[in-house]
Amino acid sequence: MALDPSKRPPLKPGETKEPVYFPEERDGWHGYIEWEKYPEKKAEAARILSKYQFELPPEFQLVPLPNTNPVLEGSRFKQYHEVMGPTLKNVPAESWETVLEEKAKDMIHVLQFPYNGEPPRERLAENEITSNEDFFVRNHGGIPRIDADKFVLEIGGLVNNPRTFTLKELQDESVFPRQSNIVTIQCSGTRRIEQIHEYPGDGDELINAPWGEGAIGNARWTGVSLKKVIKACGGLKDGAKHLEFVGAETYFKKGQVYNYAVSVPWRKVQRNEVLLAWEMNGKPLPKIHGYPLRTVVFGYIGARSCKWLYRINALKAPSEGPVQKKEYLYFNPQIGKHNSTYSSGFSIQDMPVSSAIMTPKDKAVIVHDGKIRIRGWAYSGGGHFPERIDVSGDGGSIWYEVPQENCTTKYFYGWRLWWIDLPVDAEGWLEIVARCWDDALNTQPTYVRSAWNWDLHVTSSCHRIKVYSVNKTRPKTARRLAELEKHGRGLEPISLPLPFEQEPDDEYEAETARLRGRDPLE
Amino acid sequence: MALDPSKRPPLKPGETKEPVYFPEERDGWHGYIEWEKYPEKKAEAARILSKYQFELPPEFQLVPLPNTNPVLEGSRFKQYHEVMGPTLKNVPAESWETVLEEKAKDMIHVLQFPYNGEPPRERLAENEITSNEDFFVRNHGGIPRIDADKFVLEIGGLVNNPRTFTLKELQDESVFPRQSNIVTIQCSGTRRIEQIHEYPGDGDELINAPWGEGAIGNARWTGVSLKKVIKACGGLKDGAKHLEFVGAETYFKKGQVYNYAVSVPWRKVQRNEVLLAWEMNGKPLPKIHGYPLRTVVFGYIGARSCKWLYRINALKAPSEGPVQKKEYLYFNPQIGKHNSTYSSGFSIQDMPVSSAIMTPKDKAVIVHDGKIRIRGWAYSGGGHFPERIDVSGDGGSIWYEVPQENCTTKYFYGWRLWWIDLPVDAEGWLEIVARCWDDALNTQPTYVRSAWNWDLHVTSSCHRIKVYSVNKTRPKTARRLAELEKHGRGLEPISLPLPFEQEPDDEYEAETARLRGRDPLE
Repeated sequence: MALDPSKRPPLKPGETKEPVYFPEERDGWHGYIEWEKYPEKKAEAARILSKYQFELPPEFQLVPLPNTNPVLEGSRFKQYHEVMGPTLKNVPAESWETVLEEKAKDMIHVLQFPYNGEPPRERLAENEITSNEDFFVRNHGGIPRIDADKFVLEIGGLVNNPRTFTLKELQDESVFPRQSNIVTIQCSGTRRIEQIHEYPGDGDELINAPWGEGAIGNARWTGVSLKKVIKACGGLKDGAKHLEFVGAETYFKKGQVYNYAVSVPWRKVQRNEVLLAWEMNGKPLPKIHGYPLRTVVFGYIGARSCKWLYRINALKAPSEGPVQKKEYLYFNPQIGKHNSTYSSGFSIQDMPVSSAIMTPKDKAVIVHDGKIRIRGWAYSGGGHFPERIDVSGDGGSIWYEVPQENCTTKYFYGWRLWWIDLPVDAEGWLEIVARCWDDALNTQPTYVRSAWNWDLHVTSSCHRIKVYSVNKTRPKTARRLAELEKHGRGLEPISLPLPFEQEPDDEYEAETARLRGRDPLE
Repeated sequence: MALDPSKRPPLKPGETKEPVYFPEERDGWHGYIEWEKYPEKKAEAARILSKYQFELPPEFQLVPLPNTNPVLEGSRFKQYHEVMGPTLKNVPAESWETVLEEKAKDMIHVLQFPYNGEPPRERLAENEITSNEDFFVRNHGGIPRIDADKFVLEIGGLVNNPRTFTLKELQDESVFPRQSNIVTIQCSGTRRIEQIHEYPGDGDELINAPWGEGAIGNARWTGVSLKKVIKACGGLKDGAKHLEFVGAETYFKKGQVYNYAVSVPWRKVQRNEVLLAWEMNGKPLPKIHGYPLRTVVFGYIGARSCKWLYRINALKAPSEGPVQKKEYLYFNPQIGKHNSTYSSGFSIQDMPVSSAIMTPKDKAVIVHDGKIRIRGWAYSGGGHFPERIDVSGDGGSIWYEVPQENCTTKYFYGWRLWWIDLPVDAEGWLEIVARCWDDALNTQPTYVRSAWNWDLHVTSSCHRIKVYSVNKTRPKTARRLAELEKHGRGLEPISLPLPFEQEPDDEYEAETARLRGRDPLE
């Protein structure tokens, strides 16, 4: 799909176009505008945005998703950038170039801009460490381009000695010990498509992307613990309880502009579970993943692992940024467009235990001899890890434990991949279900319905797929498969009728007679 | 959608086109070819069919249905008629003209040819008697055009005195007492779309149409009891147990041609439950519904109510016609394309108890003050009738009886329409469920899964819809509705984000303080 960065939205009646110029802020930083320090610039941006008629978000939740890649385009967010003038107008096109340059060719582009994409499910489940090319991306804005040499991180707010650090200073091992951890990052939207299919929810302005099971990845992240950096600033002032991370991209919400901002509690930082990372799997961060510096918050929703991190503020309370305060909220199931308020949801930080079946795919037709191989991932955030994975072949009545030897190694902050050869006798459509138990004995809600919520976050219910089981050890089935082969046909598409008679007349008569006829006796 | 009757399929490699001429059979009969009496004609037709490469049935079960009307076109069946020469080639176009002439303008055309269509659901649920214009149509072939004056019905097979009757003779009340009954006819495909959505099944050559809840109708049918006509033929010979009905349309199956043929047991006829009908709701049968004569088999699947009936054969066993022997079979859920045989299913004759919610529609957003009005139908075939209808607003835990005064009159062979003002307190997505109990205390399977079967017949499980409940007696909801109105917006589309902030900052702070802050105390 071609990206048209000059797709300008129409002006509202009575409005006139005027020159717009929010200049680049710093040498070596492209695509970054400082909004948070300049309320007057924010107001000017809001005034400009109010002049245009932007496209509405696509109403994909009540109609099927298009069979395209990108699945959704994000025209409105492209338009927002376009009307902000030269600093941002090419950012959508540049971001897409970065996708093509840095990500695997066969990514599923769930949203073209801001880029949201996940890798093919079978490859994700094959590798304990997700490659940088395959790692899912959930961006909230365009990708800024920042020279590492020109990069500075500011630490401010309620710290005793506010100051800045260059990347080199952070990387000076004589000052900061290097920390490296296997950490899984998961978007709270993982498996959202299941919630959408059952009950549509908030089609937020920045689309709540229709993720499958691939908005999760596991990598080795290297950098410095934020705790040490705060210590190097003389520690926190009294009353400071949260650390806010500000990213360089521009974020749009309800006609206002922001820099991306989120926060985590100081408690979390104290446990060395917040890393300022510059390496991903032993390589410098890809641009799309936050180059040159990002946070990696262990066990939390991915949204807190702020990319293109350039400022940290110590605060008394959670960040007032819309991503922290107004999004990623978890509502009770009676809350929706008709009554939702930001105060009525709680903030999603720790991620619960969850799992997914990655192969076979939903609606797959599987010819087998009594066992079906199932592969997947299991993960628990919030300081926990997967202890046991169970799989059911009958919708959740009988469960088989995945042998521990079929699971990858336990890490405190990482997922486990697993496989099982599930005993399957029955034929036809079966419901395969997976669930995980973590070390605190947390397990997953039973059905999507059990935990549906308006913003469609955290689809952590038992993962269910339907497969069409064909047990070739059964004589009638073996015979049918041979007949199909003789005709040069396969079973699929499963709904395509057989090109031959299902049963010769003589066999029909013999079988009907054996079954004592079609009619009752008297 | 334009119909292209001359859309000829390509010949197979090495085949050459040749003139084809199966002439019209009788004066005053158009679109009728007699196949069953002439095996050599059947063989010739099969030879011609084998020369062409016909389109495959559309694979709609694993992908969403097109948002078109007609939903499906039936190109392959048009092509079959095209290659049969002048007697049949214009039948698809003529049949479509008949649809436009005889049916309501807003029918949902589920399949253009052979014509399958159902009326808008809200109108169907409003009228105890379904009008001829609204009555669903499930045809298996083109619509023959037969002059009533030239019409003859043959009665043969194991009757003591085989003979023919003109329509006038059948209508002679000095010979045959007139019989008139309110009878519901239901296609076994009613609500099939629910089975397709959950688990795809047989995409039979003549497409198992993706029906909604409208493949059912209730009419007054007038004619003569078949029992009396058989009596006028001197009764049945020893051993005769089934009566086969042959219709004048041409039916295609796996490269062979047939006249439509089905059968019912003599027991059924003896009870005066099989009518040879020429009137529908006091008017001559519409052409599309079988003019000039059809059977109406009370309590049975609609497929036995043979249209354009022109021959009846008394047989020892059920009809060998493919519609009777090879279709409308009910399989166990482990049977499918990989192992199905005709002898492993049983024939669907009597229809079980079922019901459907007709309004509101699935995924509707309903603003109410504590009650939601639900309307629907309930029906039981097989000699039974609906006694009680229950409705649940919570997925099937708490049930409310529909007051008897909200149900239409009981008929032995007819449906009942019903409505209830269901008490609803909760908001958000709710699952409304309906079920019926008949006079034999039969009720409906709980879930679609409970009774899924390969041919996707008889979706008689409790009918479930999802509605988005907005209870305007709740203060937060009332306030949001007022805000939306102030902005000139409605709630729908429900997934479109609010164009304004959900909560002012001061209210957020006050509410968060009232809730004792976001953080735990220590």
